[in-house]
Amino acid sequence: MSAREGEPVALAYFAKGYQSFVLKYTTVTDDPTATIDVPMKETTDSITYLREHATELNLQKNKICLVGFSGGGHLAAAVSTHGAVRPDALILGYPGIVHNDLRAMDCPDICESVDEATPETFMFGMNRDSVTPPQHMLSFAKALDEKQIQFEMHMFKGVGHGLSLGTSLTSSGFAEDVKPRYAKWFDMSIEWLKETFGDFKLYGVNDGRDTKYNIDRNLKVLFSDEKAKELCLNKMPVLAEFLSETQMVEMTPRKINGFMKTISFDELMELDRKLCEI
Amino acid sequence: MSAREGEPVALAYFAKGYQSFVLKYTTVTDDPTATIDVPMKETTDSITYLREHATELNLQKNKICLVGFSGGGHLAAAVSTHGAVRPDALILGYPGIVHNDLRAMDCPDICESVDEATPETFMFGMNRDSVTPPQHMLSFAKALDEKQIQFEMHMFKGVGHGLSLGTSLTSSGFAEDVKPRYAKWFDMSIEWLKETFGDFKLYGVNDGRDTKYNIDRNLKVLFSDEKAKELCLNKMPVLAEFLSETQMVEMTPRKINGFMKTISFDELMELDRKLCEI
Amino acid sequence: MSAREGEPVALAYFAKGYQSFVLKYTTVTDDPTATIDVPMKETTDSITYLREHATELNLQKNKICLVGFSGGGHLAAAVSTHGAVRPDALILGYPGIVHNDLRAMDCPDICESVDEATPETFMFGMNRDSVTPPQHMLSFAKALDEKQIQFEMHMFKGVGHGLSLGTSLTSSGFAEDVKPRYAKWFDMSIEWLKETFGDFKLYGVNDGRDTKYNIDRNLKVLFSDEKAKELCLNKMPVLAEFLSETQMVEMTPRKINGFMKTISFDELMELDRKLCEI
Amino acid sequence: MSAREGEPVALAYFAKGYQSFVLKYTTVTDDPTATIDVPMKETTDSITYLREHATELNLQKNKICLVGFSGGGHLAAAVSTHGAVRPDALILGYPGIVHNDLRAMDCPDICESVDEATPETFMFGMNRDSVTPPQHMLSFAKALDEKQIQFEMHMFKGVGHGLSLGTSLTSSGFAEDVKPRYAKWFDMSIEWLKETFGDFKLYGVNDGRDTKYNIDRNLKVLFSDEKAKELCLNKMPVLAEFLSETQMVEMTPRKINGFMKTISFDELMELDRKLCEI
Repeated sequence: MSAREGEPVALAYFAKGYQSFVLKYTTVTDDPTATIDVPMKETTDSITYLREHATELNLQKNKICLVGFSGGGHLAAAVSTHGAVRPDALILGYPGIVHNDLRAMDCPDICESVDEATPETFMFGMNRDSVTPPQHMLSFAKALDEKQIQFEMHMFKGVGHGLSLGTSLTSSGFAEDVKPRYAKWFDMSIEWLKETFGDFKLYGVNDGRDTKYNIDRNLKVLFSDEKAKELCLNKMPVLAEFLSETQMVEMTPRKINGFMKTISFDELMELDRKLCEI
Repeated sequence: MSAREGEPVALAYFAKGYQSFVLKYTTVTDDPTATIDVPMKETTDSITYLREHATELNLQKNKICLVGFSGGGHLAAAVSTHGAVRPDALILGYPGIVHNDLRAMDCPDICESVDEATPETFMFGMNRDSVTPPQHMLSFAKALDEKQIQFEMHMFKGVGHGLSLGTSLTSSGFAEDVKPRYAKWFDMSIEWLKETFGDFKLYGVNDGRDTKYNIDRNLKVLFSDEKAKELCLNKMPVLAEFLSETQMVEMTPRKINGFMKTISFDELMELDRKLCEI
Repeated sequence: MSAREGEPVALAYFAKGYQSFVLKYTTVTDDPTATIDVPMKETTDSITYLREHATELNLQKNKICLVGFSGGGHLAAAVSTHGAVRPDALILGYPGIVHNDLRAMDCPDICESVDEATPETFMFGMNRDSVTPPQHMLSFAKALDEKQIQFEMHMFKGVGHGLSLGTSLTSSGFAEDVKPRYAKWFDMSIEWLKETFGDFKLYGVNDGRDTKYNIDRNLKVLFSDEKAKELCLNKMPVLAEFLSETQMVEMTPRKINGFMKTISFDELMELDRKLCEI
Repeated sequence: MSAREGEPVALAYFAKGYQSFVLKYTTVTDDPTATIDVPMKETTDSITYLREHATELNLQKNKICLVGFSGGGHLAAAVSTHGAVRPDALILGYPGIVHNDLRAMDCPDICESVDEATPETFMFGMNRDSVTPPQHMLSFAKALDEKQIQFEMHMFKGVGHGLSLGTSLTSSGFAEDVKPRYAKWFDMSIEWLKETFGDFKLYGVNDGRDTKYNIDRNLKVLFSDEKAKELCLNKMPVLAEFLSETQMVEMTPRKINGFMKTISFDELMELDRKLCEI
């Protein structure tokens, strides 16, 4: 079952712009003598590796989200609640949480382990899942809420376990594992991630410069102010060539300089500073 | 707050094809001496009225869904769990469930009252709702699950109570009550209703006649079988005029007879019987 | 066919917050001697009626959108391009546009009539519509573009005419008229309407007061500025009671005063003016 | 501009289950003396390569879709209308089509070249695109329609060229290139691809065996027929262990044998044949 919850899910997040990594951790199938400590260490070591190599991997070390399904959800929840190293967000698909219902390795109780360092969590699954019935997610949600950890939960009506993305792609050909309603969890998890981690950088929006005027405002806005217009045209006379209504709405100094290259980056930054000060 | 949860929501369901009725029930504000019995009787009387007048109101008496928000969600849940008359489905928006957190009228405990006659339930709300925090929905979900009543739950991250549809329409102008992610609950509730009650009647799909050939199969399908083709053309020679690929895919005997009226309804039904028997 | 394109569509828009009216206009079926002038006058009279009664009907006289399907789309396009009175926006479902393909009443050519007073248009239909094939919409789009009138067009793959909303509700039971992909036109038309007419009023967002501080900013924002905080607490001491993180994010002075009523509307407006001036 | 239309788009399709390849073709920037023949040959050679290596690349040789944006859309349309080798479907984002508006290499007129071998096409863009205005797509749509080639077109209101997916991911940080409405083109293109090429294989749905009984029907269906039940239990006695309502709805003989392995693949196929014959 697990192949459908590894690469296909990692690719889905990668296509949305998130650096994605698949961890193949040790299970009791691999090693019957393994304790929970083994996969937990593999997971925390992985998080540490990502944080230590954040620059070369082009990721943000405080925006690492751990994603786990079913038994992998148990592991992800264990790391998130009592791991020595924690992720910054947690996504759980039909996780195993409550121990007396699991053939779990010896492990501290997950719900009792929820603490202030437990990350925000997004959960989803089916309400007639016969392997990890709703009580697992409900118990975890309750425990998170008691510690005032934010969570989001989507529990859909119907049967099914191990549905992964719920699309034909991850169904292994089994028609009953294609669930269009359930499949919405993925896009909802992306929206949740953007709400939780913030969106990718947008100039003048979430880069700390939401001033009225700057080099990422369009010409229509900039030319509506006499001072801004003068600054722009002095520094970048080429802007005077973009006069159609459409161009003025579409174009910003940074964008135009991107392909016209009439001024240097430093000059562009200087123009920005002056515009921000208006 | 309640105006935004009455007509606008009823209209939203009505526009999707569901006969909708708004019940203005008695609250402690209306009558400080009122017990829970008063609004419960108003609700069960309403359900009984709808069932008794099902034909003239053009509704199905075993497909009545009760919808309640906040305090109205408490009432709807009370009726659904220990009412003398029950709805066939239940939709709850950020309901009050747990009594020690509510300024509730004296009322049997809702979670303890869940029984086999409790209808399937769809719930939604925000996880930082300060009036009816998550424990209300989580407790009800747990109680439903223990009695094997199906449920669906969507708990979104964020603050807010009384958000109704979560759109500008129901925001009363308060920008912080417009929540596009949360607003998805409504379309999800429609999909859940269709899954739970079945879709509106579609000929040859959910009307008990999903036979290979019938008067609701298109001409391309019908003419692919020699016997079906012969039956069709004998009874409705006019069908021979619909020969373009597009027409053959688009048109069925019932549809063509709808505007050509070349045979009577009884003759059409006879053709259908014979096609079904192939 | 037309019943499915009247009330169900009007209700769908009404449920989204738009005042909706259905015009039953004269057709050649009603009166074989009628010229195009008759339904055109009925339509322009209706628009004039709505504008003259805007206040009592609670609508904005410069935000009237005309919606027409098929033959009704021809009429709506005729009014929009050469009517004496014009709507402010136009929505056309699989409209008849090109005259040599229509059993049209004698009428000026629609594409040739497009002028500067023609409103922005949203169009949709199927590319294998056998009644009004794509050339109708493509010709109209071309004519609009030549006059620099904005338009949006969604032409879906597949057969079908008169599909209305494309849902089971408007299918009259014909399964082939349920088209989930096509059915997206409706929500897309709502988004287009909001982009074209603007959203419903949101305090502090689109009511002309998007100042940093005003009575529609939440307490967290207001209390982050010493001056704003002082103004708020002086005028509305009750605000000091809303101190939890959740309350501070959720609550605004206007909202709190809505249910606490500690100050008059005039006093609230005075507080707003002072906050706006910071 | 082109980097945002290469890998990010290829990854988006790959994540949806489509093998994706990015062709870096020769442009006049690379080689001022290049004629259109050079990139056309690069494209047709690529298609031929994919078809010849279909097995090892795990793709279907008659389901190759060519995707092009802007100038790349011109190339893709050129190959699709007068190339020696053609793709099986075509997706065009704001393509250059009409030559007198393009700084195009010498090339046969695309609209005049549309023929019966031109593949079905999906197109999208903005109606105020200042680089490839609407006439490009409208002309191509008209030409396709005249040759009865199916097409789908989504033209959104607003300015913008080179928007790629229209998300923050492909915006290069330019906020005005994030267009949530426009961004729907991608999911709509996936739905179109599934409609055009068919969905990925689902047992018993689109694998040529949509018989009432087969090894991909759930136990509830199979056990409702005496003969089917007997065949199943004789061949796979283990099925008798899956008796809960949930299991019976969720489980099929193929699925159960997938993890129980009580019979061989040949025995499973024999059971299937017998069930299909009922």
